[in-house]
Amino acid sequence: MNPIHKRFAFAFCLIMILAAPLHTRADRGPLASWNDGTAKQAIIDFVVAVTKKGGPDYVPPAERVAVFDNDGTLWSEKPAYFQLLFAIDRIKALAPQHPEWKTQQPFKAVLENDIKALAASGEKGLIQLVMASHAGMTTDEFEQIVTDWLATAKHPRFKRPYTELVYQPMLEMLQYLRDNGFKTFIVSGGGIEFMRPFTEKVYGIPPEQVIGSSIKTKFEMQDGKPVLVRLPEIFFIDDKAGKQVGIQKFIGRRPIAAFGNSDGDLQMLQWTTAGKGKRFALIVHHTDSEREYAYDKESHVGRLDKALTEAKANGWIVVSMKRDWKVIYPFYK
Amino acid sequence: MNPIHKRFAFAFCLIMILAAPLHTRADRGPLASWNDGTAKQAIIDFVVAVTKKGGPDYVPPAERVAVFDNDGTLWSEKPAYFQLLFAIDRIKALAPQHPEWKTQQPFKAVLENDIKALAASGEKGLIQLVMASHAGMTTDEFEQIVTDWLATAKHPRFKRPYTELVYQPMLEMLQYLRDNGFKTFIVSGGGIEFMRPFTEKVYGIPPEQVIGSSIKTKFEMQDGKPVLVRLPEIFFIDDKAGKQVGIQKFIGRRPIAAFGNSDGDLQMLQWTTAGKGKRFALIVHHTDSEREYAYDKESHVGRLDKALTEAKANGWIVVSMKRDWKVIYPFYK
Repeated sequence: MNPIHKRFAFAFCLIMILAAPLHTRADRGPLASWNDGTAKQAIIDFVVAVTKKGGPDYVPPAERVAVFDNDGTLWSEKPAYFQLLFAIDRIKALAPQHPEWKTQQPFKAVLENDIKALAASGEKGLIQLVMASHAGMTTDEFEQIVTDWLATAKHPRFKRPYTELVYQPMLEMLQYLRDNGFKTFIVSGGGIEFMRPFTEKVYGIPPEQVIGSSIKTKFEMQDGKPVLVRLPEIFFIDDKAGKQVGIQKFIGRRPIAAFGNSDGDLQMLQWTTAGKGKRFALIVHHTDSEREYAYDKESHVGRLDKALTEAKANGWIVVSMKRDWKVIYPFYK
Repeated sequence: MNPIHKRFAFAFCLIMILAAPLHTRADRGPLASWNDGTAKQAIIDFVVAVTKKGGPDYVPPAERVAVFDNDGTLWSEKPAYFQLLFAIDRIKALAPQHPEWKTQQPFKAVLENDIKALAASGEKGLIQLVMASHAGMTTDEFEQIVTDWLATAKHPRFKRPYTELVYQPMLEMLQYLRDNGFKTFIVSGGGIEFMRPFTEKVYGIPPEQVIGSSIKTKFEMQDGKPVLVRLPEIFFIDDKAGKQVGIQKFIGRRPIAAFGNSDGDLQMLQWTTAGKGKRFALIVHHTDSEREYAYDKESHVGRLDKALTEAKANGWIVVSMKRDWKVIYPFYK
């Protein structure tokens, strides 16, 4: 290397070194996957306001509770709720032990991949599927079944494990809030014991901060050890007004920020924003059919109609996935 | 002040300054109100073992869950559960609006301080009292009622607010565990919304870490604002096997340490100790009639019989209040 080259190389290295921290900072900054705009600015303004000591909107850390819906807010929910796809896989896996399912609806529909017949079985059929696939084992056994499924099952369109179909901008949001002293909770219509096996690893949300629907369980002694057996009976449905009930039962403190994507989240957003002091409500609007899915008021899964009207009336933040998010999934980062 | 006095004063001050930190350190050490002995040593040994990085019994902080019963374990429960004394006070306060109570049991018994008739009304009577005093208002209103009562009501024997009748050695235990990365939870048969208004201030346990019994609630809009109205219907009883169910529902992770005082805690202690790895179970035995109360297997409130037998069989720690605790209540410190 001649001296000119050497000097050039030195200058180049210097520039890289000087540039690197700036580059890294921009990349790793909070909400890096959010495009600049109303939504991103509103979030930052809110967090700055409630964390500013001595400011008029200051909220002590213990009261910085943020609640997140899961399906459609933290991960995808199409072509159907992932938990339903899990139930269908379980029915197929259990079918050899249930020859009667070959002729019984809604099981027959599942085994024959007959979506029309499955849809025709309605909510009653759905509950039958859930109970047949989610009950009858101990809580420890069920946790293992879910863990195994999540490790092997793949999404029909994206051909990836379901736990990779989480929204990168929302992962950053969870982290940003926690970095600012918030405690983040999931408040989902989904099954509490279906979510807990992955929420800590994927979202950084420990099991005790996951609220969801659940079935009843029964204490039993098996081989001299206490177990909880899952019963085919609903205990609590954590959806719509149930979300408000669930928040009060499990957290016992009104959140100051709530994040949802459908009419099932409306009461949670209302309950959050009806509290005194500064509040924040955000709705994820699925507007990106290319990178994810586009749907709202006509959708069976994750219908967004009333909550969108309410959002406009109340000044809640509506995020357009297409406009506001640089990336959707972490693997496209 | 003459020079001799001055010098003496100086020396005196110096001694005080030098002595002060030592004195303070001894006073503020972990478990300062615990007498040296098996119980104290067992706790320290357990905490050292599970927090020692690289050690065979190491438990990561996220899994250091410790559960505490409340009545009789963190605060007193005699002459009756404090929540029952609250219900009785509420019935008396509400009596002018209910002239029919003058002739109706169990209300008549309460208004006439007729303990015998009250006892005769049994569990059914008790539930009637609880429903009449705990339901019919919003959750916010109930919180205010409890807060007001706790601020004014006094214990019949000790003439102190009920929130002062907490056990100083257990406050130190909570702090000691938290200082070592534990997350501390209450798992009580008592009402979840009766406890939450004071647990953060008194025990350092936030509302979202309080598990208890509860009644149903209903979402309603009042003056355009969402509220939850408390209904006179049981939702969940967090006692006996219910404690194990409650732990699984609310925490979703098996505790590694459990603290109780009665047969109502037996399943919680069994569930905790049946997990893999190092576990800790402790029972507070009420043996001090002078400084608190002495009772066990013959007691109606906080009966300790089976759990004491199990403790001996399984090597759980049994704390004798009389022998192991230097002080009982903080105000005698």
